Amino acid sequence: MLRSAVVRPARLTTAAALHWRYPALETAIPCRGAVRMGYSTVPTPERCYADFCLVPVGTANVSVAEEVAEVQKLLKDSGLAYTMHSAGTTVEGSWDEVMRVIGQAHSVVHQKGVLRVQTSMRVGTRTDKKQTAQDKVKRVEDLLAKGEK
Amino acid sequence: MLRSAVVRPARLTTAAALHWRYPALETAIPCRGAVRMGYSTVPTPERCYADFCLVPVGTANVSVAEEVAEVQKLLKDSGLAYTMHSAGTTVEGSWDEVMRVIGQAHSVVHQKGVLRVQTSMRVGTRTDKKQTAQDKVKRVEDLLAKGEK
Amino acid sequence: MLRSAVVRPARLTTAAALHWRYPALETAIPCRGAVRMGYSTVPTPERCYADFCLVPVGTANVSVAEEVAEVQKLLKDSGLAYTMHSAGTTVEGSWDEVMRVIGQAHSVVHQKGVLRVQTSMRVGTRTDKKQTAQDKVKRVEDLLAKGEK
Amino acid sequence: MLRSAVVRPARLTTAAALHWRYPALETAIPCRGAVRMGYSTVPTPERCYADFCLVPVGTANVSVAEEVAEVQKLLKDSGLAYTMHSAGTTVEGSWDEVMRVIGQAHSVVHQKGVLRVQTSMRVGTRTDKKQTAQDKVKRVEDLLAKGEK
Repeated sequence: MLRSAVVRPARLTTAAALHWRYPALETAIPCRGAVRMGYSTVPTPERCYADFCLVPVGTANVSVAEEVAEVQKLLKDSGLAYTMHSAGTTVEGSWDEVMRVIGQAHSVVHQKGVLRVQTSMRVGTRTDKKQTAQDKVKRVEDLLAKGEK
Repeated sequence: MLRSAVVRPARLTTAAALHWRYPALETAIPCRGAVRMGYSTVPTPERCYADFCLVPVGTANVSVAEEVAEVQKLLKDSGLAYTMHSAGTTVEGSWDEVMRVIGQAHSVVHQKGVLRVQTSMRVGTRTDKKQTAQDKVKRVEDLLAKGEK
Repeated sequence: MLRSAVVRPARLTTAAALHWRYPALETAIPCRGAVRMGYSTVPTPERCYADFCLVPVGTANVSVAEEVAEVQKLLKDSGLAYTMHSAGTTVEGSWDEVMRVIGQAHSVVHQKGVLRVQTSMRVGTRTDKKQTAQDKVKRVEDLLAKGEK
Repeated sequence: MLRSAVVRPARLTTAAALHWRYPALETAIPCRGAVRMGYSTVPTPERCYADFCLVPVGTANVSVAEEVAEVQKLLKDSGLAYTMHSAGTTVEGSWDEVMRVIGQAHSVVHQKGVLRVQTSMRVGTRTDKKQTAQDKVKRVEDLLAKGEK
């Protein structure tokens, strides 16, 4: 679940700040005339999944299979749960772990001499329940199977 | 520019490993018959841009403007360069800074009571030159202007 | 707005099928024991916006500005409303018009000799109201301005 | 492969037009003082793959499994080759067929009462060879297997 964090709009009068509905997460410092906001303590999510497709740009090679294979090795070495499909790879872990490994994927491809890398990514977070990649697919397959009876 | 990093192909004889050009980041452990590879020291890129579109899921509200406004305040507080357009927001900075603020954006929206958040993102890195958002647009506009003379 | 369309859940008894409320688009064929469903008459949306970023792959050129400029000319010629930003271009129109011009953008770039093209795209449709690109940005800016008073 | 198409920069003098390098695809009409360009005959690609993730917005339901299941039925009915994974679905076919079915997916979800739908999509086209989803995955797996020997 999400570790405690405070979020405050940038400018809020002291009166409004005192009425703000997140007392347990109070870190703003009320002072004469204004309330200074702190987003700096907002944490990143503890769980997420990211589906990404990394594209090397400006190589003279229309095939990207070698770069994709290198990224798969990086993912394997990371210890995170991941699945490769035909249009990308899905990784699961904490936000920081997942984003770190995708950043490392960029670095690893640059390391092979590629000057420019573009990645398209879908990231999802939810706080109501934990759900793995397999859970998500199974849920839809179950609905479809129910419909076919 | 990218700090030096070691990346090793999976198959490398011990002899070749000893001749590899990145001694400061040497983490391979030569042993009889194989070289074990280590990606753990690969850094994330020093510069990147990310264009992202955050979508709250399962709110009973078809408008997402309040969540988007909250994210804009977070971005303003972060000190990073960012531009909002009609279909998303582009942020520039180091990979770690950019990914941290987007993760915080998810947390901030969850904090407002949204249980599920989906973001679609485009990230780009390049090692040949520094280029701001304005540079990129100007380059294309110059080409178009040249073509019209 | 969306023209009426028939969508049938997979499981429906023949009796229920006959009572279904979309007679003009009736394509289910009731027969002994089952109802076959037809999605073929479902229309595509009358309005949408698509934000896309087209990436040429396997050119020996790390710059993509020429291909982007060519696509801008295509968009200008199409008559559709569009806005270029640093990380992509947003186009507005009917689903068919928008997808046609983005497909033509791929063809135009292939025509320049590029063998492989990857596009990342965000598409949105809504049936509750019409909203232009400018409306969307203004809505968020108004919320931010209100918050700062 | 790509059917013939002409692409011309918007403004080109008649002299330059006559020197333009695509004689077989000539449809521009040179006339006194200017050459009118035609992008209207540019076709959309004959083959593409699209990996998409459709997100209903503003439903009061944090689960999207029912909408995803409905879209799977639409895809099944379309006759196109498609594969569902945990973060989206990949469809293969001509550009027009693929974009039509994704547009229909939006309509089908609107039909269920959802007012707003956002899809993130990756589309790829290539003119050098035909490659199925399975081919792409196998190519990378073969490279990885080779590396492990």
